[in-house]
Amino acid sequence: MDKKERVEQFLKRGIAEIYPSKELFKKVLLSNKKLSIYIGVDATGPEIHIGHAVGLWKLRELQEMGHQIILLIGDFTGMIGDPSGRDTTRKPLTKEQTRENAKKYKEQVSKILAFKNTKNPAKIVYNSKWLSKVSLSELLKLASNFTFQQFIERDMFQKRIKEGKPIFLHELLYPLMQAYDGFSLKVDAELGGTDQTFNMLIGRELINKLLKKEKFVITVPLLTGLDGRKMSKSYFNTIPIRDLPNDMFAKVMSVKDSLIPEYFELATNVEENLISEVKADISNGKNQFEWKKRLAFEVVKRYHGEKSAKKAEIWFVNTIQNKQFPSDAKRVYISKKSLNIIDLLTSIGAVSTKSEAKRIVTQGGVDINGNQVKDKNEIIKIGKDIKVKVGKHKFYIISVKK
Amino acid sequence: MDKKERVEQFLKRGIAEIYPSKELFKKVLLSNKKLSIYIGVDATGPEIHIGHAVGLWKLRELQEMGHQIILLIGDFTGMIGDPSGRDTTRKPLTKEQTRENAKKYKEQVSKILAFKNTKNPAKIVYNSKWLSKVSLSELLKLASNFTFQQFIERDMFQKRIKEGKPIFLHELLYPLMQAYDGFSLKVDAELGGTDQTFNMLIGRELINKLLKKEKFVITVPLLTGLDGRKMSKSYFNTIPIRDLPNDMFAKVMSVKDSLIPEYFELATNVEENLISEVKADISNGKNQFEWKKRLAFEVVKRYHGEKSAKKAEIWFVNTIQNKQFPSDAKRVYISKKSLNIIDLLTSIGAVSTKSEAKRIVTQGGVDINGNQVKDKNEIIKIGKDIKVKVGKHKFYIISVKK
Repeated sequence: MDKKERVEQFLKRGIAEIYPSKELFKKVLLSNKKLSIYIGVDATGPEIHIGHAVGLWKLRELQEMGHQIILLIGDFTGMIGDPSGRDTTRKPLTKEQTRENAKKYKEQVSKILAFKNTKNPAKIVYNSKWLSKVSLSELLKLASNFTFQQFIERDMFQKRIKEGKPIFLHELLYPLMQAYDGFSLKVDAELGGTDQTFNMLIGRELINKLLKKEKFVITVPLLTGLDGRKMSKSYFNTIPIRDLPNDMFAKVMSVKDSLIPEYFELATNVEENLISEVKADISNGKNQFEWKKRLAFEVVKRYHGEKSAKKAEIWFVNTIQNKQFPSDAKRVYISKKSLNIIDLLTSIGAVSTKSEAKRIVTQGGVDINGNQVKDKNEIIKIGKDIKVKVGKHKFYIISVKK
Repeated sequence: MDKKERVEQFLKRGIAEIYPSKELFKKVLLSNKKLSIYIGVDATGPEIHIGHAVGLWKLRELQEMGHQIILLIGDFTGMIGDPSGRDTTRKPLTKEQTRENAKKYKEQVSKILAFKNTKNPAKIVYNSKWLSKVSLSELLKLASNFTFQQFIERDMFQKRIKEGKPIFLHELLYPLMQAYDGFSLKVDAELGGTDQTFNMLIGRELINKLLKKEKFVITVPLLTGLDGRKMSKSYFNTIPIRDLPNDMFAKVMSVKDSLIPEYFELATNVEENLISEVKADISNGKNQFEWKKRLAFEVVKRYHGEKSAKKAEIWFVNTIQNKQFPSDAKRVYISKKSLNIIDLLTSIGAVSTKSEAKRIVTQGGVDINGNQVKDKNEIIKIGKDIKVKVGKHKFYIISVKK
């Protein structure tokens, strides 16, 4: 693929909007200029899901074109908490929590961006480096570049205002911190989800004013959650990118049919003409299951490679689709000959808390030797080996320790 | 006057409101507690007028009761500019300007508060001492105590919002700085004009929250300008407290009749029963001119003493009331035998700019040898001495230098 093709592909897929314009950014991408482009993350949660990854994959394309990618860990801003997309106020993190999250974050991003063994490795920076040194007078000077009327235009602020919910002053100032990040880094472009548009444009305005230079703002679409709602950890409708292949495969298989084309477009790198085929079929209600398996295969392939993706598919077909108990189920030895179902589930590590165990049993998610266990007080006897299935894809063979 | 009488007098006159209540403040004043009470001024302009002085005189009463008065010079906040009572944004001052203003400010306040030769001298503090050390994270922590909805309740913000005028973010943060002042000083009370009520109550809330103690907020009424509008330097309807006696006397004489009782109440220290007499007469349209002379006498006496007040009254009666040209008019020698009226006024120092000269001539404010000069292009010949009257009370005898 030559440079022109790469640039065109970059602009065509997975981009919501580019400010001031796609045309201008295209011109710069086609020139020989090496750009410095950043994405900011708040380090409020350590888990990257395939929705977050949409923007990271776009950055990988830019990295492959030779540009300098900067991953900004908002350890300072994480202590405030961006109110983006929230209608309640976030609890600030401690310094220690942000550091810990940042470390885990980098590990995961390494699956997508190259931090070494390349001529232009991605860089990681922490915004506490400059924001912890900003004084009140500097802040006030910065603040004087903007009006409060401008700031409350943000959609989530408008939402809170209409609902009579408080917007705390430190939250109102959040976009100013983010703008200062871009100013300190003297970047040429910033990339983020469409929910970050406002903040990124405030940053663009500040760089325009103070540095008299352009800062491109590239927004990427927000991937819809598996169930059709906004993708959010609290809805259990995300797929973390560090999920194991089988889990990832099974989760993709639970996506709503209508979302299949969107997922192909944003969560895989299959070619454009395949996506057209998918769109045509899905809108005619054809081959949903087959396309979904292809989708799951492509998503797993992206994070774990083709071999793992194939194995996950076989596992899925045998175990979930054809309901076979897998031959490689985990073998666990326990010391008691009989015990309560809840204690059983926790002692084999199938769940992490007793309340999770109760929830799964109540929802009918536990089978023992092919029979659903419905009573959370049921006592399980383990004479010979028993086969336990928990949720859709956790399998155990349990024996009494001799 | 015993303590109880003093306290009652303090609460009766020149007080708009006390938060949380007059009753509670009275109780504390009657106890033996020595309070620390502050007033903040922005040091944006060096001139104190009799309107500003209303609060300072109330503080003097408190000082005489033995309390610690703190005069806070807002050298830091002056660099932002409080948007109070303004519907446009103030230009920030430089550090140097605030220092210079503060120095002049202290000189003037010394006419009212005792800075030495007393057991409880008033103290001067500068808020740059602590505000210049506030970091961004401290500010954000402070800010998290308040919501933006609370802050935009301020009447002048509401006014700007309705008129579609911008409120810059640094202005929105202003009350927070002021609140921090009170917190740093750990004061028991703050005094200010009613236009400061909002800011002072935010400060009270912060002290309540962070120090778990009460901060009384004492508001004093705003003295109306001489012409019945809001008192403001830009309306030329104020009386600076460093005006010379004659000027001060003449200016008081220009006050609107209906304001005479208010001025007696807030700008003099005559007794209550005299004020009742004044009110009765003015509401019946009686003795306005005589009361106004008494008022002018009392105001001048307050700042310059009784002797000067008497002299000023005699000057006023002879020169203004009976239109005599004063025998002690300023004698000025000039080198030209004839010149344009505008150049004449500027060269004798009667005005500070040509545009001021033009305005006064156009308004009919200039007499030469008893004849009004109306044409701003008129050429004045100075054969023998001429008598020049500018405005109501500037008199010059001009001779040609030999």
